[in-house]
Amino acid sequence: MKPGNKTKRIEGVLAPVITPFGKDYAPDAARFVRHCRWLLRSGCAGLAVFGTNSEANSMSVAEKRALLEALIAGGIPGASLMPGTGHCALSDSIELTRAAVELGCAGVLMLPPFYYKGVSDEGLYRHFSEVIERVGDERLQLYLYHIPPVAQVGITLGLIERLLAKYPGIVAGAKDSSGDWNNTRAMLEGFAKDGFDVFPGSEVFLLEGLRHGAKGCITATGNINPGPIANVYRQWRSADADRLQAGISATRKVVQKQPMIPALKSAVAHFGNDPAWRTCRPPLVELTGAQEEALITELKSIGFSMPGLAA
Amino acid sequence: MKPGNKTKRIEGVLAPVITPFGKDYAPDAARFVRHCRWLLRSGCAGLAVFGTNSEANSMSVAEKRALLEALIAGGIPGASLMPGTGHCALSDSIELTRAAVELGCAGVLMLPPFYYKGVSDEGLYRHFSEVIERVGDERLQLYLYHIPPVAQVGITLGLIERLLAKYPGIVAGAKDSSGDWNNTRAMLEGFAKDGFDVFPGSEVFLLEGLRHGAKGCITATGNINPGPIANVYRQWRSADADRLQAGISATRKVVQKQPMIPALKSAVAHFGNDPAWRTCRPPLVELTGAQEEALITELKSIGFSMPGLAA
Repeated sequence: MKPGNKTKRIEGVLAPVITPFGKDYAPDAARFVRHCRWLLRSGCAGLAVFGTNSEANSMSVAEKRALLEALIAGGIPGASLMPGTGHCALSDSIELTRAAVELGCAGVLMLPPFYYKGVSDEGLYRHFSEVIERVGDERLQLYLYHIPPVAQVGITLGLIERLLAKYPGIVAGAKDSSGDWNNTRAMLEGFAKDGFDVFPGSEVFLLEGLRHGAKGCITATGNINPGPIANVYRQWRSADADRLQAGISATRKVVQKQPMIPALKSAVAHFGNDPAWRTCRPPLVELTGAQEEALITELKSIGFSMPGLAA
Repeated sequence: MKPGNKTKRIEGVLAPVITPFGKDYAPDAARFVRHCRWLLRSGCAGLAVFGTNSEANSMSVAEKRALLEALIAGGIPGASLMPGTGHCALSDSIELTRAAVELGCAGVLMLPPFYYKGVSDEGLYRHFSEVIERVGDERLQLYLYHIPPVAQVGITLGLIERLLAKYPGIVAGAKDSSGDWNNTRAMLEGFAKDGFDVFPGSEVFLLEGLRHGAKGCITATGNINPGPIANVYRQWRSADADRLQAGISATRKVVQKQPMIPALKSAVAHFGNDPAWRTCRPPLVELTGAQEEALITELKSIGFSMPGLAA
């Protein structure tokens, strides 16, 4: 292992940042940097760029590396970045993880390889282990990304235990997007005491998570509602916490009536007065006019806004 | 579209060629070329390199491109090649498809983007359409790869119809690995008359497929049993066809008692006296000693052999 000093671990609310594309479906680095700045100004502690909600799996390693370099060049601190670096291909995961460490990112959030289904924990252990060994850098802080509804391949408690025992300090935590609170609680009860930082994958579990030792959350709607979600994080010990939690859960409920990723893009396009944001890279498609109208109307009816977004 | 002459379409038995890896998990080009030569000598009409059985999704675009160049440099005719070029990332699919066309491959076999689940036919249409337009080369012959048990995202009849209407000549056919004969038959009945070449994804459906207008098959076990499978293809109109089919189906049945990809590798390692073949790239793992022994014992008991494989 190449020696190096780890960045302070991120705690709080992270957004899996949506990625803007041009009409030719090329990633739009300038718009991406602007949205990241707004998120940090608005309460996000960190940016989980290249997540599921980022359409990251529709981009090549080279495209993602270029966006990461644009963020750093644009003044976004590496200490706030937790890019997704997990791919089907071992070599791709190694390449982007190494780039993230060298660019000074605080951590990386790694999907398991997700093409082959029904793979063994031994195979997944070898995959993560090989990435860690090949990157070979003590600065690496790796968060495991458990999202069985999409990836189908999940991260079991047994796999976490084995990786954590072998790579303490490097294996830093997990995002749990199972949507199953019992699984999140089991991760917390099993490993939080060993310095394993757990982030529920939705703000719906933020308050409950914090009460059980979670370090924050990494949530899709962090892209559009960062202020109120960060407020729950800041005030979770206050008497008002349950009321604040109910507010952000209500907003989430409205957004997830539509397909999540295009809905987030429509919201940013509408409230930021920036129609280019609507484009999704295939295989995803933008909302229909009727879907967007339903979304915006209902968001407005609950008093939703995105302060400071419009230029 | 850049004008160009298409290669004659491949008909017959294709193997989704297994990929050898070194102890460091790097692709082993020399061993790969040797196995491809043996397959063509032994009856395969074509090589569907970079398929599911090739662990292709565990390799980067650069690794696959290097292997493809090694095949061409090693004298494997482009006219026999149908590499898999479908990735989650639009940009990756474009890059490898373009490389395949430029290297003179007869066709490409394209997975749909498979990370996001429940995507619309409109989104998949845009993905394939964008690849075709960006490659922009009349030499392209694209085969759609339908393998819902693994990719989860499938190719519907409606999507085929739309792509075939827009890109006749370029959209050349499909591999159907659904394992559902009714689906294969529906593809044949719907589109074979329009020059859409259908290949069942297992030799179990070879004879039935040929009787309904299929052009051959693309099958995992083509890696180890190419002679007898090609013999069914050659003799399917003979009185002996059903007996020959029963023979290859029996071999298949033995192999699929074990995890398919490591089982194919164990068979090549054993019968080719070449232990290096056993290595699988994570997340896949090799067979245990007991699994391999069960496989080899049962294969021998039915008189299985791999003539000409051992050096």
